[in-house]
Amino acid sequence: MQPNKIITLTTDFGQAGGYAGAVKGVLLRINPQIKIVDITHEISPFNVLEGSLLLNSFYQFFPKGTIHLTVVDPGVGGKRKGVLIRTDDYFFVGPDNGIFSFIYDQEKVREMINITNLEYFLGKPSSTFHARDIFAPVSAYLSLGVKLGEFGFPTQDCYKFKLHAPVYRKDYLMGEIIYIDRFGNLVTNISSDLIRKSKRVQIRIKNKKVNHLSQYYEEEKEGKLLILIGSSNFLEIAVNQGSAQKLLKAKIGDKVKIEKI
Amino acid sequence: MQPNKIITLTTDFGQAGGYAGAVKGVLLRINPQIKIVDITHEISPFNVLEGSLLLNSFYQFFPKGTIHLTVVDPGVGGKRKGVLIRTDDYFFVGPDNGIFSFIYDQEKVREMINITNLEYFLGKPSSTFHARDIFAPVSAYLSLGVKLGEFGFPTQDCYKFKLHAPVYRKDYLMGEIIYIDRFGNLVTNISSDLIRKSKRVQIRIKNKKVNHLSQYYEEEKEGKLLILIGSSNFLEIAVNQGSAQKLLKAKIGDKVKIEKI
Amino acid sequence: MQPNKIITLTTDFGQAGGYAGAVKGVLLRINPQIKIVDITHEISPFNVLEGSLLLNSFYQFFPKGTIHLTVVDPGVGGKRKGVLIRTDDYFFVGPDNGIFSFIYDQEKVREMINITNLEYFLGKPSSTFHARDIFAPVSAYLSLGVKLGEFGFPTQDCYKFKLHAPVYRKDYLMGEIIYIDRFGNLVTNISSDLIRKSKRVQIRIKNKKVNHLSQYYEEEKEGKLLILIGSSNFLEIAVNQGSAQKLLKAKIGDKVKIEKI
Repeated sequence: MQPNKIITLTTDFGQAGGYAGAVKGVLLRINPQIKIVDITHEISPFNVLEGSLLLNSFYQFFPKGTIHLTVVDPGVGGKRKGVLIRTDDYFFVGPDNGIFSFIYDQEKVREMINITNLEYFLGKPSSTFHARDIFAPVSAYLSLGVKLGEFGFPTQDCYKFKLHAPVYRKDYLMGEIIYIDRFGNLVTNISSDLIRKSKRVQIRIKNKKVNHLSQYYEEEKEGKLLILIGSSNFLEIAVNQGSAQKLLKAKIGDKVKIEKI
Repeated sequence: MQPNKIITLTTDFGQAGGYAGAVKGVLLRINPQIKIVDITHEISPFNVLEGSLLLNSFYQFFPKGTIHLTVVDPGVGGKRKGVLIRTDDYFFVGPDNGIFSFIYDQEKVREMINITNLEYFLGKPSSTFHARDIFAPVSAYLSLGVKLGEFGFPTQDCYKFKLHAPVYRKDYLMGEIIYIDRFGNLVTNISSDLIRKSKRVQIRIKNKKVNHLSQYYEEEKEGKLLILIGSSNFLEIAVNQGSAQKLLKAKIGDKVKIEKI
Repeated sequence: MQPNKIITLTTDFGQAGGYAGAVKGVLLRINPQIKIVDITHEISPFNVLEGSLLLNSFYQFFPKGTIHLTVVDPGVGGKRKGVLIRTDDYFFVGPDNGIFSFIYDQEKVREMINITNLEYFLGKPSSTFHARDIFAPVSAYLSLGVKLGEFGFPTQDCYKFKLHAPVYRKDYLMGEIIYIDRFGNLVTNISSDLIRKSKRVQIRIKNKKVNHLSQYYEEEKEGKLLILIGSSNFLEIAVNQGSAQKLLKAKIGDKVKIEKI
């Protein structure tokens, strides 16, 4: 697999500042042929878990050879390593702090490099902005065809979150909300496979019950709570033309109980 | 007219999530030559009318052959059609829910296709994310030169909002606020033509009167209410270096009365 | 130096509207080869100083020949000039209202043009949206190789902010906060040179004292106040995994006292 000149950017830098701009400048100065694709710069500050979930929602749609530059980095300048990962189809560059947890779970990691070679850094790197000083130049040189081994030494040790899996009980399955999108849809950690095994289900969240699995939002009346399999193949709790988050005053981590009926 | 590889994106997906990222991935996987241009992902959730007004403010500045991918889609997965429209200069792809109301009004529609051909979808489409599963792949294949007729069958039936036009009375004209921009400028539905017919006008909004048509914001003192013809050729109510929205506590739909003096 | 087809966009137009979209359309209509790089559209409305500081944080990372289109323009349509500046490495296009203050300070201005030639405007320009009608077309024609002298006449007179420099007293140095980033880090006007002259320093802000210069955020415990040299080489007040802005209830302009110890 060769890099394809596409580099996606996923960070918690915020839209309002110049940090993402500096990263883009560094990328284009090293390789003006790069096609930069903004994913988001609005991950909640320091929220590595949110970043890892978000990465998981889009990376697999990109063409083979895409470089996913992903930086939520509260430990910048400290002990955490910087890593460069090659899977069958993609490259990932960023801090080794759990942000690639889903990638380690779902993809075969073919090569993982602990980034150490100063030769590919932007001068003497600052200790507060490795996205600009290390991860961007490494991504850009990678896109120019520099071999992975050039950037540092192979490593197999990496940091993974223990992701909450749904818990099986005798009569029910206990899941939880792992992500809330802009529309107030509540994405759970319950995959469509788990749901489809049982023909009929009932979910309970915050004293509300829903026992019909909808196909699409408009199937229910405006303002009505519903459940469906969302676009990432997880059970999702939603409100037609409204916000399930507001209706239920829900937050990440809230429990969702699934019972057979 | 041939597609020119430029695809603009206008959605209500929000900056903070991965939805726009997934759409971009699909576009580039099918055609890596596409030049993606973010317009906005911050249309108010489900607000199709706002999306249609926003589309109207920029589409005509793009080069001939641009594809405008426009998705505010509360009815996704339900009965609303997906459409592909060709006008003299542009292509438009999105749900047929009124989002193209201004396009139908202002452009000659040369071809309109009800998108039905599964062959150009991303696998089996989800029922909640047609932007990723249908509209993005159709736009990408269109940019590769696939003929419009391939995507479905011709249709002429389409959904249009009844847009509020200003109302003529004996002594005055009654318009309303249709859009409020980031600066708090109040854009009305009163076109510059209507204003210029009468040499001198006075407007009334919320018990305030303004009777001088300014040429630019700084013509008035800082903080002072003023009216001018805005950049979209509609009468606009503004405050020099301030927000007319805040000063007047104005909202969309508020009436604006224009009297000859 | 030739333009390199990269044009960066820095504005206060907001993500949510169509203004940036219209600018992008005009750029691509004149030169479809342009590579547009969004820096931000979220500068606080009318805040020219914030725009000038932000420009200063990223422009120098871009490749030689980049055009930096920078528009925060409360005086649009009034007396302020529009300018086109050439330095050794870059071009800058925007209003002459102080937004290029740091550029004038830090770069050698090789050529400065007062933009007046209607031939390169978008039709008859509006008096409220020169980014779309003047600055975008001028930038696009510049990227096509039109010579600077074609756009107007040379000028040397330009508007600069008087930027606050730190004040020296007998026993201390008094600086101030000039920028607060998304993470709540407080960026001061005290450069790393000033700090490094004295081996040991103590800073005071709002009755808090810090006397250890950290190398990176994680050096201190979570939630602890710290000082370090930030990525722009200015003294920065921060909190590990927290917000110094919130902790100190700090705002731009707050004084920061540096004492030798």
